[in-house]
Amino acid sequence: MPHVHAVILAGGSGTRFWPASRRSMPKQLLPLAGPGHESLIAATIRRLQPLITPADVWVATSTTLLDATAHALPDVPRAHLLAEPVARNTAAPIGWAAATIARTDPDAIVVVLPADHFISDEAGFRAVLERAIRVAEQGWLTTIGVSPTRPETGYGYIELGGALHEGAHAVTHFVEKPDRARAEAFVAGGRHLWNAGMFVFRAGVMLKSIGRHLPALAASLASLDAAAEKGDEARVLAEVFPSLPSISIDHGIMEKADRVAVVPGSFGWNDVGSWEVSWELARHDAEGNAVPDGTVTVDAANNLVKDLSTGKKRRFALLGVSDLVVVETDDAVLVMPRSRAQDVRAIVEELTRKHGLDEV
Amino acid sequence: MPHVHAVILAGGSGTRFWPASRRSMPKQLLPLAGPGHESLIAATIRRLQPLITPADVWVATSTTLLDATAHALPDVPRAHLLAEPVARNTAAPIGWAAATIARTDPDAIVVVLPADHFISDEAGFRAVLERAIRVAEQGWLTTIGVSPTRPETGYGYIELGGALHEGAHAVTHFVEKPDRARAEAFVAGGRHLWNAGMFVFRAGVMLKSIGRHLPALAASLASLDAAAEKGDEARVLAEVFPSLPSISIDHGIMEKADRVAVVPGSFGWNDVGSWEVSWELARHDAEGNAVPDGTVTVDAANNLVKDLSTGKKRRFALLGVSDLVVVETDDAVLVMPRSRAQDVRAIVEELTRKHGLDEV
Repeated sequence: MPHVHAVILAGGSGTRFWPASRRSMPKQLLPLAGPGHESLIAATIRRLQPLITPADVWVATSTTLLDATAHALPDVPRAHLLAEPVARNTAAPIGWAAATIARTDPDAIVVVLPADHFISDEAGFRAVLERAIRVAEQGWLTTIGVSPTRPETGYGYIELGGALHEGAHAVTHFVEKPDRARAEAFVAGGRHLWNAGMFVFRAGVMLKSIGRHLPALAASLASLDAAAEKGDEARVLAEVFPSLPSISIDHGIMEKADRVAVVPGSFGWNDVGSWEVSWELARHDAEGNAVPDGTVTVDAANNLVKDLSTGKKRRFALLGVSDLVVVETDDAVLVMPRSRAQDVRAIVEELTRKHGLDEV
Repeated sequence: MPHVHAVILAGGSGTRFWPASRRSMPKQLLPLAGPGHESLIAATIRRLQPLITPADVWVATSTTLLDATAHALPDVPRAHLLAEPVARNTAAPIGWAAATIARTDPDAIVVVLPADHFISDEAGFRAVLERAIRVAEQGWLTTIGVSPTRPETGYGYIELGGALHEGAHAVTHFVEKPDRARAEAFVAGGRHLWNAGMFVFRAGVMLKSIGRHLPALAASLASLDAAAEKGDEARVLAEVFPSLPSISIDHGIMEKADRVAVVPGSFGWNDVGSWEVSWELARHDAEGNAVPDGTVTVDAANNLVKDLSTGKKRRFALLGVSDLVVVETDDAVLVMPRSRAQDVRAIVEELTRKHGLDEV
């Protein structure tokens, strides 16, 4: 049975979690879901165990985030942190990771996962992942699709083809974010799954597919590979990476390849898209408040208080307020209704306009 | 013309401005009114000038607050800070201050003022104070009464008797906090003023009145006086003060004495009773927000943000919130609607119950 590696895609940044998320401290490095102080990326790696241990985890991140990522993941070997000099979507880092793993183990199974999602049913997730691994062993480029629970227009969808073994289906189409009517039809039809950005494949199969569908990327990966053999990877990386095609694995490979499968699953998946979701996924008191220990609440319900400051902790007191988000960091404080969580961008834009990029 | 001294009553504590106000940092030491960072007590002393300079200001405070008070008032002579070992209402500290001043200047005029009120028309206030001083020179125990602008049930009232000179009136009664109906009648009748706790008198006249109406206090003041002559005041103070009657100057003297006058005035007086009032008295932006410089607001109106923390200042961002109070100190954060400002006590009670008195 082939060895299984995980590749965590952790190069992302974003503004929806300002003031917690910054260019230097993006979403995946923050404890935005669940009861404790575990970052999203640490949870992503923890819940793979015992199926995949941290020694077999690789993380594709950016040079800017390399140190912060290493700090967040003490159990992942430092040599397994792949730092992209510039962001080039998902095909490039996945290809780079697959080539790196294939150098010592071409038959290895590679599991690609986003760093910044939440899963409530971790055992259920591992069961689905094990099925996807068995499908991938047969040479299929396999994805895990999440059974949709609402007509979400913010996600891509995967259209199911004929049934394979292990509960898997062939994939007929990767569908872009639909409009509301199409999304409703997808949910009603039962033939579409959410594309959660999770992929499982044999390293060699993916590299062969890249060679066929993204030959420019394949050539660059080959030169990276040659440089790595000579211990000269860092220099060539800085030279080659900016020229790589910026294309997603979905578009570049999965939509074009022949043997593409999907394993459907329902395991409490959430992409943690806003402070509103962070409140939903947090531990609540009897009044629905998700607040730091020791917070005093009087006539206060359904509030989120997130204290991400690093110094001595403050005592929070909420009196007569409901459905608010209060976020504190070392240098900023945000107060808004939970219902405005999608509009944090407006604050970031105002900050950028008035004060430059230093604070965002 | 007699020399004029001011005695500032600054022994008070309070919970309505938690988390800013604490036992060790009460309301008068905080910048709760006006545009800048000036504490209420510093403003109280500043606006007396040029009528009374800091060299002629005395401050009655508690031993606990002595250092913080001295720090807040660098221009007031340290020897003019009278530290009460225990709180004994207002007759005792006023008597003590009057006796201390009379020791070197028995004909001096003494102006007694609360430390924690706000006055918008400072020149108007000084004009009223000058009239009160001229009345007091004639031997009247004089108070300054504020013309009421609403049927407030939270204040005591002063009932006007016959007209004297300088716009002053004799006082017929000091009236306790009335119920709503009486307060409305007071405002409609035009014969009642708010009792703002401001008194002006000759030191000797007050001491004589204390001798007559509060003989026990007079005896204690005499023993303090004798000890002070021998440089032994500190020891006797600790011995004598706890035994002093705990009575207000209003009840103990003003209601009983013969020649009691009031000078009416309207000078934008406010007792700064809550965070709601602090918002009213602050400088606002076009949307009615009273917030620190650099605050980013989007769809946010009529909010108060008060940052009394001492470290590096944070950036505040308000999105889609209105009529909120947000107060930050080094160890606590309070969020509530302005309309709940009177209920801060509930937070303090909850804190005391759960976590003891350390934080209140």
